[in-house]
Amino acid sequence: MHSFRSDNNAGLCPEARQALIEASDGTHRVGYGDDEYTQRAVDSFRAIFGKDIEVFFVATGTAANILAIASLTDPWEQVLCHDGSHFNEDESTGPERITHCRTVQIHTQPGVSTIRTNDLARYTRQSRGDVHQPQPGVLTVSNSTEMGEVYTPTQMRDLCQTAHEMGYRVHVDGARFANAVASGDFDPNELTGAAGVDALSFGGTKNGLASSEAVIFFPQDDGAAFQRAVRAFPYHRKATGHLLSKHRFLSAQFIATLQDGIWLKYAQHANTMAQQLAEGLRSVGVEIAYPVQANAVFVKMPEQLHEALHSAGHGYYSVQRAEGELHRYMTSHDTTAEDIEIFLADVRRFQIR
Amino acid sequence: MHSFRSDNNAGLCPEARQALIEASDGTHRVGYGDDEYTQRAVDSFRAIFGKDIEVFFVATGTAANILAIASLTDPWEQVLCHDGSHFNEDESTGPERITHCRTVQIHTQPGVSTIRTNDLARYTRQSRGDVHQPQPGVLTVSNSTEMGEVYTPTQMRDLCQTAHEMGYRVHVDGARFANAVASGDFDPNELTGAAGVDALSFGGTKNGLASSEAVIFFPQDDGAAFQRAVRAFPYHRKATGHLLSKHRFLSAQFIATLQDGIWLKYAQHANTMAQQLAEGLRSVGVEIAYPVQANAVFVKMPEQLHEALHSAGHGYYSVQRAEGELHRYMTSHDTTAEDIEIFLADVRRFQIR
Amino acid sequence: MHSFRSDNNAGLCPEARQALIEASDGTHRVGYGDDEYTQRAVDSFRAIFGKDIEVFFVATGTAANILAIASLTDPWEQVLCHDGSHFNEDESTGPERITHCRTVQIHTQPGVSTIRTNDLARYTRQSRGDVHQPQPGVLTVSNSTEMGEVYTPTQMRDLCQTAHEMGYRVHVDGARFANAVASGDFDPNELTGAAGVDALSFGGTKNGLASSEAVIFFPQDDGAAFQRAVRAFPYHRKATGHLLSKHRFLSAQFIATLQDGIWLKYAQHANTMAQQLAEGLRSVGVEIAYPVQANAVFVKMPEQLHEALHSAGHGYYSVQRAEGELHRYMTSHDTTAEDIEIFLADVRRFQIR
Amino acid sequence: MHSFRSDNNAGLCPEARQALIEASDGTHRVGYGDDEYTQRAVDSFRAIFGKDIEVFFVATGTAANILAIASLTDPWEQVLCHDGSHFNEDESTGPERITHCRTVQIHTQPGVSTIRTNDLARYTRQSRGDVHQPQPGVLTVSNSTEMGEVYTPTQMRDLCQTAHEMGYRVHVDGARFANAVASGDFDPNELTGAAGVDALSFGGTKNGLASSEAVIFFPQDDGAAFQRAVRAFPYHRKATGHLLSKHRFLSAQFIATLQDGIWLKYAQHANTMAQQLAEGLRSVGVEIAYPVQANAVFVKMPEQLHEALHSAGHGYYSVQRAEGELHRYMTSHDTTAEDIEIFLADVRRFQIR
Repeated sequence: MHSFRSDNNAGLCPEARQALIEASDGTHRVGYGDDEYTQRAVDSFRAIFGKDIEVFFVATGTAANILAIASLTDPWEQVLCHDGSHFNEDESTGPERITHCRTVQIHTQPGVSTIRTNDLARYTRQSRGDVHQPQPGVLTVSNSTEMGEVYTPTQMRDLCQTAHEMGYRVHVDGARFANAVASGDFDPNELTGAAGVDALSFGGTKNGLASSEAVIFFPQDDGAAFQRAVRAFPYHRKATGHLLSKHRFLSAQFIATLQDGIWLKYAQHANTMAQQLAEGLRSVGVEIAYPVQANAVFVKMPEQLHEALHSAGHGYYSVQRAEGELHRYMTSHDTTAEDIEIFLADVRRFQIR
Repeated sequence: MHSFRSDNNAGLCPEARQALIEASDGTHRVGYGDDEYTQRAVDSFRAIFGKDIEVFFVATGTAANILAIASLTDPWEQVLCHDGSHFNEDESTGPERITHCRTVQIHTQPGVSTIRTNDLARYTRQSRGDVHQPQPGVLTVSNSTEMGEVYTPTQMRDLCQTAHEMGYRVHVDGARFANAVASGDFDPNELTGAAGVDALSFGGTKNGLASSEAVIFFPQDDGAAFQRAVRAFPYHRKATGHLLSKHRFLSAQFIATLQDGIWLKYAQHANTMAQQLAEGLRSVGVEIAYPVQANAVFVKMPEQLHEALHSAGHGYYSVQRAEGELHRYMTSHDTTAEDIEIFLADVRRFQIR
Repeated sequence: MHSFRSDNNAGLCPEARQALIEASDGTHRVGYGDDEYTQRAVDSFRAIFGKDIEVFFVATGTAANILAIASLTDPWEQVLCHDGSHFNEDESTGPERITHCRTVQIHTQPGVSTIRTNDLARYTRQSRGDVHQPQPGVLTVSNSTEMGEVYTPTQMRDLCQTAHEMGYRVHVDGARFANAVASGDFDPNELTGAAGVDALSFGGTKNGLASSEAVIFFPQDDGAAFQRAVRAFPYHRKATGHLLSKHRFLSAQFIATLQDGIWLKYAQHANTMAQQLAEGLRSVGVEIAYPVQANAVFVKMPEQLHEALHSAGHGYYSVQRAEGELHRYMTSHDTTAEDIEIFLADVRRFQIR
Repeated sequence: MHSFRSDNNAGLCPEARQALIEASDGTHRVGYGDDEYTQRAVDSFRAIFGKDIEVFFVATGTAANILAIASLTDPWEQVLCHDGSHFNEDESTGPERITHCRTVQIHTQPGVSTIRTNDLARYTRQSRGDVHQPQPGVLTVSNSTEMGEVYTPTQMRDLCQTAHEMGYRVHVDGARFANAVASGDFDPNELTGAAGVDALSFGGTKNGLASSEAVIFFPQDDGAAFQRAVRAFPYHRKATGHLLSKHRFLSAQFIATLQDGIWLKYAQHANTMAQQLAEGLRSVGVEIAYPVQANAVFVKMPEQLHEALHSAGHGYYSVQRAEGELHRYMTSHDTTAEDIEIFLADVRRFQIR
């Protein structure tokens, strides 16, 4: 029975699997990223995001986020994030241990998981500019969000402009960036570099790769933050144990999936599956808690229904939020229309009882 | 003209000054706290808070807070605090650098600066107990608060019970603990150890001493947190550069002011001055923004009045809060009724215009 | 042409490659180690090292070392290591950032890369036991060493006994542990747990796996250090970004290579290749700088010869040590006798000139 | 009976005591260094070290050292120090916790406590310049050293030149800088800024002040390290809890003792007392272990003599060094010729037996 627990529970997409096989060709390659695979992966990213970016690879999304932000900050600054974000809720105290920055949680209305410019206003107002307060550091937002919402290029541009005016740099946690891009058929660069984003954690793991994440820095304004970050990142990565020796097994997967829009094809598929799931649930009266724009479906459901589904072996997570208990269904590159239908059939069956 | 900027702008009270002179007696004393003065200061604290406490001295309130909390936590936990607290607003990223814990800001209604048990509920609800989230660590509250409110022993007991049930230890930032005790003529131990508090930063600097703060640990429950903390504190203090060699100049001041209730006499005086100031302001229609229970008076006032007072040379700070611009007047051990009257005279004078 | 640059330049051994393919079976698996593959990998380690060990997986050797040591120490302790060790020379300031402990370099005679009990004496002598000095923490040794020497079980037992008496726990950096075991056909547990070792970084990456390392904790004495370490490790791993979601791709490789002694077969092969290389070099008068007991050959050679080999495209590293410039040749699971012969033929050819 | 345990066991010199009394004048002063006393103290330092320096105040020598070095480094660098230095032996893991840099111990011959340019050679040789190794950071030397030796301006200039060429900045731990200056009647700036030193911890506490240390930064070369350090220092100081509110009580003592060469008068006196002590000991055959150039006398003495002196109540410390057990006698601003004579009389008395 298909599991909707998490897109990181899925295995490899065929292209990533094939890339691993081909990279295991019996040859020797210089370690730590100084190999041809890694250079080609960087080139693949540049073809998408522009020639002036810098790209680094790590094995986990938490590492991508905290190393990117560490490279953009001083240890006396603060990082603004949504209180429901992975950064705040699922990276333990990694942000503090690696950046030493203050994490400041931004709370939004129930049913909203995106940050808007007016959510930032209180942090301008309260900034005294003296040495006693944490200083402006980074605004980090997830796109798509952990609740499955998507920022548009316009929203990103507005956020970046306001954040920059407040003295903050902007980081995007793109563990599900592919789903955000696919959601609106956006230009990846319009959602990031061209919108003013300073750094992007580009996720592979949740889109069919094995422990493969990329950190991309975009030069903005006078380029000072960029220069500092790209100089610091390699040292931060090494000094936290995050520099992989056999880089090629990571970069080969990116080469394979960045070409021909494969990464977007899988993301689009997962998004479509989420839409079908949401429609099916809505049609039987289950309340959808957040707009379904990417590959997550959050619902409220009667306790009885939840228990019946659980007992029947359906896999998904339940979370306590300010809005009460929510149940999360993640679709992934390998979710099928049949998987959805099997699940919905049980929902309908248990609803009736 | 008397300044209401801060109680730490005041000089030494006569007893602290005399203690410094007497401790400068030309003798040698073993450094780093292994001297008779320090032992006597510890005894003075035990006479107030009970024999089973442990006491350590440091030079700043920030050091007291962050070292106390570091000793009570693991670096993967979180610390709950009021968003307007000194811990959140005035210690830069000291909490993160020394404890590595997540700082979580609790927001209360405008006009309220204390945390109540029901403010803690969301953190129970959201605690998943897995390795991904920051774990329950410490609840830190200021008594009196930075806004001049005071927790009673009953309120502290309720808070401690709830916090302990949630897996948190409790720390009190008592930079102005004397003002809290004096405010309700409370028993100091009823406000802390007997209420379930695990650690208290006992402030001297804001009550007439020179760079003198004490950290007090109270054994609670099975004593495990206490044992760990009192073992760890000396190492944390030393390994952050906070162990003073000439300890006697710090401890001598505590000996001098803890006897005969001198510390409470000064705090009571400052509180009374705040009351007089608040009454005087209220009587001419100035809005008092927070209950005046200790030695702080926060007001909203017309911009014109503020500017006139400012131009006339009156010293006080203005802060931007969710409730708008507030002006803060701190009274101290050396504020006189005449100082209050001179200030109020100007307020009345400028009001009329 | 075969490269002798590093055993981490090699690709995957066939069994690891096959394991990756099989684990990519299209199924979903719960993330973060709570899957059947990981449980089976843990069982495989227990079959070798005993039932009472605990095992954790990470992607890099640096992560294995610094997280293991962080779990065994308080942040006011010191770590003794050989000055030529990976820990001291190749992990940037990872040890300091993650453990906060002092790193203390032990220097040995030229041509010696192992630490003996009498090298530890000065650290007993100088330990004052006061709060001012870093406290005894961990002794970390590499087995096999970075220079290709191997500690025997007896030597490890002596080291552990002395270190424990001095108040230190013992960690073994086993990035090339397989080579050490194979070197003397030792019982793996006799070299570690039974010898008194508290923690082992068990390397896979340098023995044909892709970014796969295991940390093993052994209960010693009263079990207190073990209890603390196994409780702390999962938090340290998560809070530094080192918890992989798709654990199965890592653990599957261990399952595949721990069975039937495959890991030792490859290590033994690499060791044999190193012996052949050393003998060949010795036979033409090249000076071998360290005993060749594992898969590394360090030599001194005339500058001319080095340049000729370099120009001919042979891959190896040169390092500056107290004993002068040394050239390092690492053999690996895929080095062949023919590779050795081709290289030696060039050595002989260039020697003659 | 006078104690020779430590110069930080002494009380205040009369001028510091008087300064504390006068600064306790009942007035309010803005906190955190923005007061007239602090400005005047800075001016006093500029009169000695030049107009382009920046000066900051802290309460402990450890804080001065680790905050100065943190401001001059990135957290992936290394700090070279003498293995017998306060930095290595008496600051716990403060260097690691605040700077995250690697501490590298330089060992010298028995009887030598200074570092010479040729001691640095191995660190040039071994520096590979890749991301895996800790990068060049700071060379820190104590002047006068913990063993009582003094670097001359020429020696400092040579050290700074070599260190800078190697990519290191230079920090001087001047806990006893006054004794170094007085030792050779040197120009203070010739020993520091003019010699190429980047930062000096200027000690007050061991020269008759109460918890008063200054950190001085000197612009060198293109000024880049200086600019970065003076920007970072205030944040590092605050974010580690080291910013004192009542700054005036610290700075007033410096104003009082920097004028009219009072600081040097006391240091010269202590140095002279050490000379008299050393001569007296030498005359009765006690072996002096290090050159006596400042206010420390290290001796080897028969166990019987040591025990007799100890039993008679003479205060001094004994340390285990590579050269065996040494006994340390520190003189201070308040040691008198009579104190020396009383001690020597006992030495002579016990020698005879």
